[in-house]
Amino acid sequence: MGDPPMPNPFIGKVSPALGEADGADGIDFSLECPLPSSRHDRITLGHGGGGRLMHSLIDRVFKKAFNDPALAAAHDGADLPSPPGRLAMTTDSYVVHPLFFPGSDIGAMAVNGTVNDLAMCGASPLYLTASFILEEGLEMATLEKVVASMAGAAAAAGIRVVTGDTKVVERGKGDGIFICTAGVGAIGHNLAINPASVKPGDAVLLSGDIGRHGMAVMAVRENLGFTSDLRSDCACLWPGVEALLKAGIQVHCLRDLTRGGLATSLVEISGTGKVRILVNESAIPVGEAVQGACEVLGLDPLYVANEGRFVAFVPASEAERALAALRSTVHCEGATRIGTVESGNGVVMKSTIGASRPLDMLSGEQLPRIC
Amino acid sequence: MGDPPMPNPFIGKVSPALGEADGADGIDFSLECPLPSSRHDRITLGHGGGGRLMHSLIDRVFKKAFNDPALAAAHDGADLPSPPGRLAMTTDSYVVHPLFFPGSDIGAMAVNGTVNDLAMCGASPLYLTASFILEEGLEMATLEKVVASMAGAAAAAGIRVVTGDTKVVERGKGDGIFICTAGVGAIGHNLAINPASVKPGDAVLLSGDIGRHGMAVMAVRENLGFTSDLRSDCACLWPGVEALLKAGIQVHCLRDLTRGGLATSLVEISGTGKVRILVNESAIPVGEAVQGACEVLGLDPLYVANEGRFVAFVPASEAERALAALRSTVHCEGATRIGTVESGNGVVMKSTIGASRPLDMLSGEQLPRIC
Repeated sequence: MGDPPMPNPFIGKVSPALGEADGADGIDFSLECPLPSSRHDRITLGHGGGGRLMHSLIDRVFKKAFNDPALAAAHDGADLPSPPGRLAMTTDSYVVHPLFFPGSDIGAMAVNGTVNDLAMCGASPLYLTASFILEEGLEMATLEKVVASMAGAAAAAGIRVVTGDTKVVERGKGDGIFICTAGVGAIGHNLAINPASVKPGDAVLLSGDIGRHGMAVMAVRENLGFTSDLRSDCACLWPGVEALLKAGIQVHCLRDLTRGGLATSLVEISGTGKVRILVNESAIPVGEAVQGACEVLGLDPLYVANEGRFVAFVPASEAERALAALRSTVHCEGATRIGTVESGNGVVMKSTIGASRPLDMLSGEQLPRIC
Repeated sequence: MGDPPMPNPFIGKVSPALGEADGADGIDFSLECPLPSSRHDRITLGHGGGGRLMHSLIDRVFKKAFNDPALAAAHDGADLPSPPGRLAMTTDSYVVHPLFFPGSDIGAMAVNGTVNDLAMCGASPLYLTASFILEEGLEMATLEKVVASMAGAAAAAGIRVVTGDTKVVERGKGDGIFICTAGVGAIGHNLAINPASVKPGDAVLLSGDIGRHGMAVMAVRENLGFTSDLRSDCACLWPGVEALLKAGIQVHCLRDLTRGGLATSLVEISGTGKVRILVNESAIPVGEAVQGACEVLGLDPLYVANEGRFVAFVPASEAERALAALRSTVHCEGATRIGTVESGNGVVMKSTIGASRPLDMLSGEQLPRIC
């Protein structure tokens, strides 16, 4: 790996005071850190130690990419205007493997995933925190690429990265990069958007075709050869939700279809909302490439993770207007109605030939480390 | 380890619909998950998969311990009252090794560390997010113990745990438990508490003796035998800060002394605030046990991490009132003045015999995974 041998990490070493011989007046207290380039090529334990290396990493990689006045204040937290009324708050960790895959990467996911959870509360994105757990030996270029992708996704979503943290764990105690983001959003509506608001008579809308994120990651991981059309759907969902709210739709519930896929999300909402959800299988869009890859791997696209798809529960009388609003936004052009809410419990799928079958959650693990 | 062999994690398996033979009306869609007890003893990849096992973990461990209405809503994010005016936001990941050590553990640290970063903005604690990255094979009892400790620390600090996330990585790709917390606090003052507000003429106050957290962790890790008195100082610092604000002290800057210790914090503030900080070595309290352990390991207590100590920069004319306010609160009984701010740059330590030496940041890593 070409790294110099690490000093005993348990014995601290204070760098010699620069220019000490010149007396106190001549001391250079600059935080700049001119270390040999080999130390900069890869992450070392020192990058998480709180000293000069960590400050150099923060300045050269994180502050540069995220470029926010709150970060520039170099304080323990960010001091920010509070949104009026209500706020939404959410968090997710990202451990996806591999870090890069067709259509996206862990950095853009870590931004969009948290922005999307805010959007599912009907909240516009405001502030994001970014915390990194890095494995010793990670290439600096890889980190920079991930951080650049985060910065791009944050700019596109209109969310500020206001504070962060970096920890480093020894080789073999992590896996390259884990990212944890938390978000705060502004709730500007008077709706109660959550599973308990779902009512019999609601229409179930789906924002587009399903299964692309999960199968794009699996295609890389399993080295499938026929999958050039498979790209993750990872995207920011706030524009679609904003369009619903601006159109005055009485949104009852929103849910993005991540781990566990469409089926698990519907089962969760049915359980929490104490309603029965009827779904028409033929109405659910699944691309050919996803269908093909699922058949090869023995997976059901209903359970495959998405990172840019969501369901919306709205009064049936507003369904057409809601679909029109969704279809007018980027990433939701393929929005469609897939079902109806009734009184009762559970999720029932009606097949193309008219047979009904209940849907349940996965009992085990379908796709580990998909997000 | 006594675990059953794992099924191929790449091939998904939908649990058979419960009671399917009874027809749709008789289906049991309960989210309860009666799995064999061996599956509950340790974390499996399935606990991060988004399916039944993950929901069972959330219900049985997290919701039970944190018991907050926002968690009970079972939505993608929490919908919460926004504080008036300004909010503080912060995040930290916790990778401390070992998970338990004299005086505290990773759970209480993950709460207090983030609460303390809010306090350093002069913000009262409101909302906390908790995100877990668990290693496959982790004992469920260990997770429950950590989560119980978090819940206790959150209750003591008066902060609500409002939303969370769980990911599981394969054995050897993590290290037991990593926790990432993010916090939101309410800023009720009109001060600008940050390094740029520090001014020549300020007094530098320290809230108590230094070095206990770092040396308590090291004592366990290095199996030092003589360290029965070493306990982490991990604690919530909001009461001390609240006392300063209630006393009307014009606080210029606050900083908790975590990684890098007192010395690094002072160097950071000197650099960002563009001031010189003079410190009297003899005024800095260091306990005998810390001093002894530092001598054995060749460490300087000025650079050892704390989890319940902070410095406050206040106008010298208010120093005595500020000290009285601090000393009236739990954990800050030993507060003392350690220095003065002048114009210039850098941090200069005056020794007991009157000699001056400049302080710098650590150049490498002193104590890896101390927080």
